[in-house]
Amino acid sequence: MRIGVWLVGGRGSVATTVITGAAAIRAQLLPPVGCVTETADFAEAGLPGLETLVFGGHDLAGTAPLVKRAEELARAGVVPSWSSTAVAHELEEADSEIRVGLVAGEPGTQREHADRLIADLTSFRERRGLDRIVVVNVASTEPPFPRRPEHADLDALERALAVSGDVLPPSSVYAYAALRAGCAYIDFTPSTGVRLPALDELARRMGVPYAGSDAKTGETLVKTALAPMFTARALNVRSWSGTNLLGGGDGATLADPQAGRSKKTSKDRALTEILGRRAEGETHIDYVPSMGEWKTAWDHVLFEGFGGVWMTLQFTWQGCDSALAAPLVLDLARLTARAHEAGESGPLPALGFFFKDPIGVREHRLVLQYELLREWAAGLGAAA
Amino acid sequence: MRIGVWLVGGRGSVATTVITGAAAIRAQLLPPVGCVTETADFAEAGLPGLETLVFGGHDLAGTAPLVKRAEELARAGVVPSWSSTAVAHELEEADSEIRVGLVAGEPGTQREHADRLIADLTSFRERRGLDRIVVVNVASTEPPFPRRPEHADLDALERALAVSGDVLPPSSVYAYAALRAGCAYIDFTPSTGVRLPALDELARRMGVPYAGSDAKTGETLVKTALAPMFTARALNVRSWSGTNLLGGGDGATLADPQAGRSKKTSKDRALTEILGRRAEGETHIDYVPSMGEWKTAWDHVLFEGFGGVWMTLQFTWQGCDSALAAPLVLDLARLTARAHEAGESGPLPALGFFFKDPIGVREHRLVLQYELLREWAAGLGAAA
Amino acid sequence: MRIGVWLVGGRGSVATTVITGAAAIRAQLLPPVGCVTETADFAEAGLPGLETLVFGGHDLAGTAPLVKRAEELARAGVVPSWSSTAVAHELEEADSEIRVGLVAGEPGTQREHADRLIADLTSFRERRGLDRIVVVNVASTEPPFPRRPEHADLDALERALAVSGDVLPPSSVYAYAALRAGCAYIDFTPSTGVRLPALDELARRMGVPYAGSDAKTGETLVKTALAPMFTARALNVRSWSGTNLLGGGDGATLADPQAGRSKKTSKDRALTEILGRRAEGETHIDYVPSMGEWKTAWDHVLFEGFGGVWMTLQFTWQGCDSALAAPLVLDLARLTARAHEAGESGPLPALGFFFKDPIGVREHRLVLQYELLREWAAGLGAAA
Amino acid sequence: MRIGVWLVGGRGSVATTVITGAAAIRAQLLPPVGCVTETADFAEAGLPGLETLVFGGHDLAGTAPLVKRAEELARAGVVPSWSSTAVAHELEEADSEIRVGLVAGEPGTQREHADRLIADLTSFRERRGLDRIVVVNVASTEPPFPRRPEHADLDALERALAVSGDVLPPSSVYAYAALRAGCAYIDFTPSTGVRLPALDELARRMGVPYAGSDAKTGETLVKTALAPMFTARALNVRSWSGTNLLGGGDGATLADPQAGRSKKTSKDRALTEILGRRAEGETHIDYVPSMGEWKTAWDHVLFEGFGGVWMTLQFTWQGCDSALAAPLVLDLARLTARAHEAGESGPLPALGFFFKDPIGVREHRLVLQYELLREWAAGLGAAA
Repeated sequence: MRIGVWLVGGRGSVATTVITGAAAIRAQLLPPVGCVTETADFAEAGLPGLETLVFGGHDLAGTAPLVKRAEELARAGVVPSWSSTAVAHELEEADSEIRVGLVAGEPGTQREHADRLIADLTSFRERRGLDRIVVVNVASTEPPFPRRPEHADLDALERALAVSGDVLPPSSVYAYAALRAGCAYIDFTPSTGVRLPALDELARRMGVPYAGSDAKTGETLVKTALAPMFTARALNVRSWSGTNLLGGGDGATLADPQAGRSKKTSKDRALTEILGRRAEGETHIDYVPSMGEWKTAWDHVLFEGFGGVWMTLQFTWQGCDSALAAPLVLDLARLTARAHEAGESGPLPALGFFFKDPIGVREHRLVLQYELLREWAAGLGAAA
Repeated sequence: MRIGVWLVGGRGSVATTVITGAAAIRAQLLPPVGCVTETADFAEAGLPGLETLVFGGHDLAGTAPLVKRAEELARAGVVPSWSSTAVAHELEEADSEIRVGLVAGEPGTQREHADRLIADLTSFRERRGLDRIVVVNVASTEPPFPRRPEHADLDALERALAVSGDVLPPSSVYAYAALRAGCAYIDFTPSTGVRLPALDELARRMGVPYAGSDAKTGETLVKTALAPMFTARALNVRSWSGTNLLGGGDGATLADPQAGRSKKTSKDRALTEILGRRAEGETHIDYVPSMGEWKTAWDHVLFEGFGGVWMTLQFTWQGCDSALAAPLVLDLARLTARAHEAGESGPLPALGFFFKDPIGVREHRLVLQYELLREWAAGLGAAA
Repeated sequence: MRIGVWLVGGRGSVATTVITGAAAIRAQLLPPVGCVTETADFAEAGLPGLETLVFGGHDLAGTAPLVKRAEELARAGVVPSWSSTAVAHELEEADSEIRVGLVAGEPGTQREHADRLIADLTSFRERRGLDRIVVVNVASTEPPFPRRPEHADLDALERALAVSGDVLPPSSVYAYAALRAGCAYIDFTPSTGVRLPALDELARRMGVPYAGSDAKTGETLVKTALAPMFTARALNVRSWSGTNLLGGGDGATLADPQAGRSKKTSKDRALTEILGRRAEGETHIDYVPSMGEWKTAWDHVLFEGFGGVWMTLQFTWQGCDSALAAPLVLDLARLTARAHEAGESGPLPALGFFFKDPIGVREHRLVLQYELLREWAAGLGAAA
Repeated sequence: MRIGVWLVGGRGSVATTVITGAAAIRAQLLPPVGCVTETADFAEAGLPGLETLVFGGHDLAGTAPLVKRAEELARAGVVPSWSSTAVAHELEEADSEIRVGLVAGEPGTQREHADRLIADLTSFRERRGLDRIVVVNVASTEPPFPRRPEHADLDALERALAVSGDVLPPSSVYAYAALRAGCAYIDFTPSTGVRLPALDELARRMGVPYAGSDAKTGETLVKTALAPMFTARALNVRSWSGTNLLGGGDGATLADPQAGRSKKTSKDRALTEILGRRAEGETHIDYVPSMGEWKTAWDHVLFEGFGGVWMTLQFTWQGCDSALAAPLVLDLARLTARAHEAGESGPLPALGFFFKDPIGVREHRLVLQYELLREWAAGLGAAA
């Protein structure tokens, strides 16, 4: 079995870390730390092995090759210093499968743009002899895109795509192309992507599964581990305030108030769902260029206990963004490929464990999400 | 129905907060924040209402009356400033049910001491017309007590109790007396208490349930919410270090290296069970008299992620010890009384949610402990 | 000697804490913790004693009387629970000296408004037999007020005040009135106040001293203690990020982006001056109503050390706003009254120790500000 | 001018970082971040340039050569990854000047051992044409050594050294040898070193200066920046608790309760001196091997403000031990060499800025220590 993992944003920090790390793990140069699908709970799920994964992707013209990007990440401590040399061959191979993605102001209709992307996917599948492909969007977060009536109906959407003008944001054009090409699709970011009724309809019609959105890698991960403690203990959370300091590309993107809004909305949802209501407090996302590939989140929780006594919990999370994200990409690709093989189509709610704003499920409590995932994977194994 | 709640350490900070708070909630002067058994998930469990609880207990001779203790706690911000006046009647009533407990160097055999305690419990039950009694040990933590062969066999224990000398630590004499008197028993502290094979045998023979040990109210509560995040995400915890700053009576007791050892052992168990191995790092318990009734815990977690990248999580928990403990006493009393009514005897593993070192169950992940509790309570309701 | 302390915002939380605390210290019910002028370093400065201070002020019509406000603050833990009763007499006396201040939309010219304020001050001085008065603005922070040419010239300002329209923000009308009435003046907030060339001219002409602005009570206090460590050690601060969580009236005012801007500008100045350049990073001020009278600041400093190694310092400051501010009001009143007595007029740079944005001096390093203050006070003592 | 810098512990992490960093700065591969003596305040002090420094030292037989050690430190992120290659020549040169130091159980009297060390220093001076040498002890911390009468008198000490048995701890033998060889000496650690009356007598007799002890690089550095804030503001510090997590060699050494005691005593002194009394609270030093070359300190300060309100300050310091220490070694060597040149002998109290437990001065407030240093250096410049 050979599985294609097609990364939109294929030379970005996350993609580079994914490809470098997967190669190093396959070569037994690194243990698979952070890969949930490598733990005992998933041994019987019939997942494709890491060695079956073949990488490709879309990125902007003119981005530096993967080997250069890996060297940069090594200097920043994101991947081991020896890794860009040790897996140079695999990086070059993946690099040769990266095609130019959507370009702002490109002439033609969005259907024509999509056709170009579809051709890239089809060619990848045939050239590399792939059983199936999972497309994962790890590109920078888009600003929110206004909803339009065509988003709710596949036929209307198809008609609109065929005339000039932008009916979809880029992330959704990638999703449309993936589904049309019979590929599973994963929204790793809060961008709109597959999250439109018309695309859900398309996924079901094509018999492909999808999942999203916005991978849970830092502050929200900790929040969804901690917030259930307060509800389970009937403690009354009065305020939950958070500040996120980010450098790197993601920080710069989210410093844009529009894109930042997408992210904050996604971040707040989990807490509100778990607590059952909106708590006081704001969430800040600050761009601090000197932080580079690292991020720090400080959260402050003010809660009321027995007798109206007020208490606090604070946490500080200091992590490397790409190193937190990369293993989730591998996990999601393997699990989604297996679900596709097992005949599942449409949203995969059991993958909610990986996302800030999961599609098709309202459970946000991390440990219960894990239980759902584990049970679903056991079912996949039984079905194999 | 009338349920007795007999508190060993009946005029301590926890007991005073329990009695004051329960009275204020009953009088609708306070909402039942922190009381898990007042939430919707437990509405159908057939639990005795807060208004059915009648308080009494054992304490040392010469302790200040409950009204005075409540005034002290009000000054320290543990209970509302108006509460000692508003519920003075209930405090006086409970105070009138407090008897002198075990005294170091008291003449006679431990069986004779136990008989005195049993008489106190029996008299309380009859005088107040109680359906059943739950004895809860909220006294100061004892130093570890050496294990003896008699602890493993009820007949041997009975024989040893009848001769002079201390075969049991005080907490276990209270537990023995409770079980002999047909009362359910709860180890709220890490003291030995009911946690001996001979007492388990007695509980089963008497048909009474018990639970423990060491209520999970602060640092360990947060740990058991957070540690499952690392295992669920296959992140490799390398060290987990903690410092606890405590004032008040508990701080002074735990400053004693012997008693502190009981506590630390109990605190470390949960983490080791969840992670599946011992992490590096120490846990300190410092007595800081100026902290008074408050406690602060700082924890530092160093973990390895994908590609061997090292990251950290820190948290600071600032809480009021008695306000964290008190609602658990009410929850445990109500749940245990209901289990007793429903015919359960021996350890109640479903109550592991409340304890650092739960008896009869190895699950330490807080959210899964909650699910076990919820399901068990639903079963109690169905049985009613 | 009798010194008037006239508080603009006379029934606010800070003023209430000042008056309650001063009375309790005079009655030896409380030690003078937080009062710099009560330490040995100031014993020889010839300062007026706390017992010489007579309180009055301006506030909005319809504010609750000081005794009620003190009760509220006692419930919030800002002043001791017994204090509103113990010093009720002093609170009532001060309350009887509070007059209605400036009212938005009041008819008449600003000169007429000022005359009313001047009359209140003159009447206070005569009725209470005061040697001199220090006016301290502890009212809510104003939004920034546009600079106008009249602000730069006293004669032009006088002419503009005599025609209708607002040439000055309210804080500057108070300052104008104070100076005109021969009273010293202190800008305790970042509002414009006395900080205009025309008012500086007036102060010098009237022979009265003034000081400001924006009392340094929390995050900035800590910053100006810590930032000199980095410069003294030649460590390269790359970013300094801060989040301030505030409840109470101040939080609500600063939640207004306009007023918040005044505050942030004032807060950033100190750091930039000490580091010698602007560091990356933002300062957030969040209104969290549940925080009540309390505030929490979290700061994150990323710095580069030897060999380009990056390290971090974080701090969390948790304080009670009014309890931090109140002793500074007493210190400033005493020191300024003494300076006035000693014949100083115009800005008092030696008081920079107390302010985020000191007038007349660029030294922001806390410990060196303290040395300047101490030496200046010694000089005042020698002059006595 | 050529200055020898002789490092006791010459292949340890600190020494390796010193030599690597100094070479990289000289080659303009790195800016001199962290070097106080490279700032404008010291430009006129007549200090020897970094290019005049020649490195050598004592270490145990069999330690890995400096190039290897630099590679290890590069992998740990302590020195830049390119540095061990870029300055390999300088590392090899320094390595060739490292001699075998004191060996436990070495035959002969301590005077004989000292003579061997003296010969190493003399040979270094002659072979390299040095104007003078500064010996800096950067070896692991010793356990406390019992005081003996001979420590108080140079003649008695000389007599005792000439007979077998250990009258001095190793650090003091190094100090004795340095002084006898006419070299200045610096106690960079809390080991006894030069801190004995007999050695003070020797230094004065030989006309050489010395300084110490225990370089202030982390928690104590921050403490001495922050504690003066509380005293300057008349805030009453009730408790100051600290936990230090250390990996690496220093962590392992200090995990030994005896050596840890030296360190804690030294750490506590500064705080007690600044506050004017002992505060509640403990200081923990935990060995956490996974921390490697990094250290984290968390401090919690509970203080009382106006009206008896209690507030807290917490900080977390995360730093790289050797990168914090190395520039201080360079600063101390340059300043001490200049003082020696200028004819100063005995302790150099102006260097207290660099130490936790400064010799010859009681000022611990960091910013005032800096002012003393700056003024003293200006005097050195004027004397040149």
